[in-house]
Amino acid sequence: MGQNKKKLSGVFAPVVTPFHSDELALDDLRFNLLKLNETDLTGYFALGSNGEFRSLSDKEQIQVLEVFAEQKGEKVVMVGTACESTRQTIEKSKLVSEMGFDYVSILTPSYFAGRIDGTTLQGYYERVADSVDIPVLLYNAPGFAGGVKIPPQTLLELSRHPNIVGMKDSSPTGPAKFLTCLDPAEDFHVLAGSANFFYPALHLGAAGGVVSLANALPGPCCDLYRLFTQGEYDNAKELAFRLARFNQAVSGTWGVAGVKAAMDITGFKGGQPRHPLQGLTDEVKEQVRKIIINEGFISA
Amino acid sequence: MGQNKKKLSGVFAPVVTPFHSDELALDDLRFNLLKLNETDLTGYFALGSNGEFRSLSDKEQIQVLEVFAEQKGEKVVMVGTACESTRQTIEKSKLVSEMGFDYVSILTPSYFAGRIDGTTLQGYYERVADSVDIPVLLYNAPGFAGGVKIPPQTLLELSRHPNIVGMKDSSPTGPAKFLTCLDPAEDFHVLAGSANFFYPALHLGAAGGVVSLANALPGPCCDLYRLFTQGEYDNAKELAFRLARFNQAVSGTWGVAGVKAAMDITGFKGGQPRHPLQGLTDEVKEQVRKIIINEGFISA
Amino acid sequence: MGQNKKKLSGVFAPVVTPFHSDELALDDLRFNLLKLNETDLTGYFALGSNGEFRSLSDKEQIQVLEVFAEQKGEKVVMVGTACESTRQTIEKSKLVSEMGFDYVSILTPSYFAGRIDGTTLQGYYERVADSVDIPVLLYNAPGFAGGVKIPPQTLLELSRHPNIVGMKDSSPTGPAKFLTCLDPAEDFHVLAGSANFFYPALHLGAAGGVVSLANALPGPCCDLYRLFTQGEYDNAKELAFRLARFNQAVSGTWGVAGVKAAMDITGFKGGQPRHPLQGLTDEVKEQVRKIIINEGFISA
Amino acid sequence: MGQNKKKLSGVFAPVVTPFHSDELALDDLRFNLLKLNETDLTGYFALGSNGEFRSLSDKEQIQVLEVFAEQKGEKVVMVGTACESTRQTIEKSKLVSEMGFDYVSILTPSYFAGRIDGTTLQGYYERVADSVDIPVLLYNAPGFAGGVKIPPQTLLELSRHPNIVGMKDSSPTGPAKFLTCLDPAEDFHVLAGSANFFYPALHLGAAGGVVSLANALPGPCCDLYRLFTQGEYDNAKELAFRLARFNQAVSGTWGVAGVKAAMDITGFKGGQPRHPLQGLTDEVKEQVRKIIINEGFISA
Repeated sequence: MGQNKKKLSGVFAPVVTPFHSDELALDDLRFNLLKLNETDLTGYFALGSNGEFRSLSDKEQIQVLEVFAEQKGEKVVMVGTACESTRQTIEKSKLVSEMGFDYVSILTPSYFAGRIDGTTLQGYYERVADSVDIPVLLYNAPGFAGGVKIPPQTLLELSRHPNIVGMKDSSPTGPAKFLTCLDPAEDFHVLAGSANFFYPALHLGAAGGVVSLANALPGPCCDLYRLFTQGEYDNAKELAFRLARFNQAVSGTWGVAGVKAAMDITGFKGGQPRHPLQGLTDEVKEQVRKIIINEGFISA
Repeated sequence: MGQNKKKLSGVFAPVVTPFHSDELALDDLRFNLLKLNETDLTGYFALGSNGEFRSLSDKEQIQVLEVFAEQKGEKVVMVGTACESTRQTIEKSKLVSEMGFDYVSILTPSYFAGRIDGTTLQGYYERVADSVDIPVLLYNAPGFAGGVKIPPQTLLELSRHPNIVGMKDSSPTGPAKFLTCLDPAEDFHVLAGSANFFYPALHLGAAGGVVSLANALPGPCCDLYRLFTQGEYDNAKELAFRLARFNQAVSGTWGVAGVKAAMDITGFKGGQPRHPLQGLTDEVKEQVRKIIINEGFISA
Repeated sequence: MGQNKKKLSGVFAPVVTPFHSDELALDDLRFNLLKLNETDLTGYFALGSNGEFRSLSDKEQIQVLEVFAEQKGEKVVMVGTACESTRQTIEKSKLVSEMGFDYVSILTPSYFAGRIDGTTLQGYYERVADSVDIPVLLYNAPGFAGGVKIPPQTLLELSRHPNIVGMKDSSPTGPAKFLTCLDPAEDFHVLAGSANFFYPALHLGAAGGVVSLANALPGPCCDLYRLFTQGEYDNAKELAFRLARFNQAVSGTWGVAGVKAAMDITGFKGGQPRHPLQGLTDEVKEQVRKIIINEGFISA
Repeated sequence: MGQNKKKLSGVFAPVVTPFHSDELALDDLRFNLLKLNETDLTGYFALGSNGEFRSLSDKEQIQVLEVFAEQKGEKVVMVGTACESTRQTIEKSKLVSEMGFDYVSILTPSYFAGRIDGTTLQGYYERVADSVDIPVLLYNAPGFAGGVKIPPQTLLELSRHPNIVGMKDSSPTGPAKFLTCLDPAEDFHVLAGSANFFYPALHLGAAGGVVSLANALPGPCCDLYRLFTQGEYDNAKELAFRLARFNQAVSGTWGVAGVKAAMDITGFKGGQPRHPLQGLTDEVKEQVRKIIINEGFISA
């Protein structure tokens, strides 16, 4: 129990996948990981939404994971392995386990959104967790899953499975309702999936956060977590507000294209998202730069 | 132009993918296609929603397509090739073209639903249509695409592309708004994506329908189209109501599991959907049988 | 039975409420009714959505109804009497009955949208229909009712009540699912609530339509109904498309403000909606005029 | 400024309206207010959602307010005065002001939900705030307003109006995004509209809460606020979780009927909601009693 708690506390970056002219830019990924390795981040979420995993072929996903395997340093790595059928998800999760990663993080199935209820989700996650030998994290993100949500009662059931040890929650309401219903005796850890509610989630017992802004501003994101753990709540709140405002203006408005633009501004290699997603225009990028400066994250 | 109109008129079955214990059951698929070849169906939609394409591996999708290639008889075949990125969609579409199929049918991207607007969709479809040498059909199905819809104005633009020749519309409102705005001079043909609105769509100029019920009741579905073309509107309406009531009770309530159960009852090989979807219980299956009998499609 | 069928067939205008500087402009209402009396409209829907009934005080609603009572000519008049509680709705409906109007038309309650299920709606409508001595029409309009919809099964139950004789359906999907499930032996008549689906609804057995465009273009709306009843389907379809395109561009885009602007253009007295709704800018009004001309409803 | 901050800090009960056989039960209201006067509640929200204001006639609303005027004791009273048109809202707000209440609380208009954008809301609230001589509170509750939400940017503009001094937020996401964007120099105070997120909202700077549970459990709700202000965060969190679980099970599941049932159990006079809403069955009421006992709010 202690080990998962430790490994899942703090800040994770859901690492973006860089492209050059729509081709994988693995050197840029290496560059970013080497820089991120030097921060206080606890770890990485590979092949998540910000990693545009659904826009990659199976082969490309392996290429990305190989870079993580080489460059992860001391960081904890969770890998997104969600497919639509249980069978595919298990297959991909086994592969990730064999590559030596720490956790699989599994978004809800969603194609048949109207048919995916709590019972179906429970059957899905239990079968996967029974079949994979590294621990499983649930990933609740209705915005990327056609509105499919893990019901709190289903979460409570799943949290009792010995191989299901946590959840990333990116629902717009944040993880309050999940944190409220969990059994504190279980080895189950909730990660806030957005800078919008990372700070209040910590006050409710979240272990940490997987926040897209950690791609561009890993330092401030880690500072927020540190200030919270040190009980410096006034400073934490002030920083949380700056990060949330920035997050709403960039990730909330422009999605992964906004995150990548912010990375270009703060010294990482972001670039453009893969087609059909569009990168930010120069004009919008300039606005993003101004917001970063206004919030005091870089100087003018 | 005339050729697409002819090839896209009438009724298509979005053919289901049978499984045995979650493994592909290709013999069952062959069985179904041989039986369907004897009907008046115009053709098939392979690897559509009812084909559970998102629940199949790339390799399994090829296996399914090889069965279609062998067993399609004289039927027109459209193949679903939608992936999340333009690049993947083009790659899969080229493969389908090389296998000799007639059309690719491409669902809107949806993972980043909040970012997918008309401009993004137009860029996506035009790039695909420019890159593939068989004609492209759009597939508008917000229920399977996290709410993403093709805006009518975008449709009007896309309908003018020489290699975009039609659309399957499965939105809950049906294709009325699309049919209203199209330029009749274009070689563009709309297929109703549900038995719920197939009949009124014909009165608005739809070329035909891709209706899940055609898996289980191909004869009545073709009869409906025939009655319409013969101007027998009273009989057509009466049959349309019976099909729509059945469709709402089965496909509308139980999705692909309901369609497969109906197939088992009418002499096809449906079986269970792939996990995590659940098949119908025996009790519910018995209800489905009663509805089929009540609506007069089989005798008790 | 025959009487309701006759009284509910054809086209109804959901009459707008004119204002001058946010004050009721009853002379303008009189002017409009006198002009509309000369058309082939079957009748009027007073105090409907386009009548901005929720923006009027109780006293103003009575003033509006008094004008209808005086000026209705030979037309059939249905009056919107929906309140949130059964008790209020009954009280208002009794008043309308005493004023001599033909029908009450009752939108679903919606404030507690999450609590309003089929059972609640059935209880509501049955109690109202039992208490009022003129016949009741249901009004299904999820867009104005926080998403509350009458379930088809509830409709079937309600259609058997002797004092519930019809429904106006303004749901985006149109009335197909309702028409499909009704018992044809019942004295129950469905009115399409939008020019978007008026024509296909007629092919499915709708008795008529209550369409906002009939405020501005009563002639073409009545022509559409006449062409349908005469079996001139090609001409009917062509006119239906013109009306639907116009409706989407005006009522669909701008709501009651668009309808009122169109009225100003076609010789009625529309004016501005009540604050906080905004009237159309001159620029947008000019666009509306161009659309009316382009669709051939007035000459340039 | 100081005065509003003081008057808007702490816990408010959105007081329910009791009925006997669907008739106003003003004696029950008096009974409840006298009991609530003895608690640490800061005040009352009269004629709010839990007060079923939309189910009351204008005359009944006055009768309710007269009881508040007589029985409010030392409590601060905000009164819901939202109507659909600006004109009606101003008229009702003036009446409330003349009756000597402290604040008006104004839900967004919602009938024409598709037309109500930030600009429309800003025009609405500014005109009301300019016309009324007691301070105005905004009320953001998309669940009761057909999905209409106050955009954060509009809130920021409105917060600068001298007569707009706060907001009750009952959106499912809670007020985090509003608190983040406010100018701390403004005399503007945010009240959390649900026990689900009252505690984390306090950590983000909310002044207090208007929570339906305060009708049934005023003591624990006030304790939560006190524990927070005393910095006893562990105890506060534990109590917040108990209240949130109870709230989700009762108010979240059954709405005002659940709140009223809980009141009956804890010694207040709740009774049934007004028709067409249904009260809880005895069986469900028994479940509610068990939850109250399990969470330790009353003994078995």
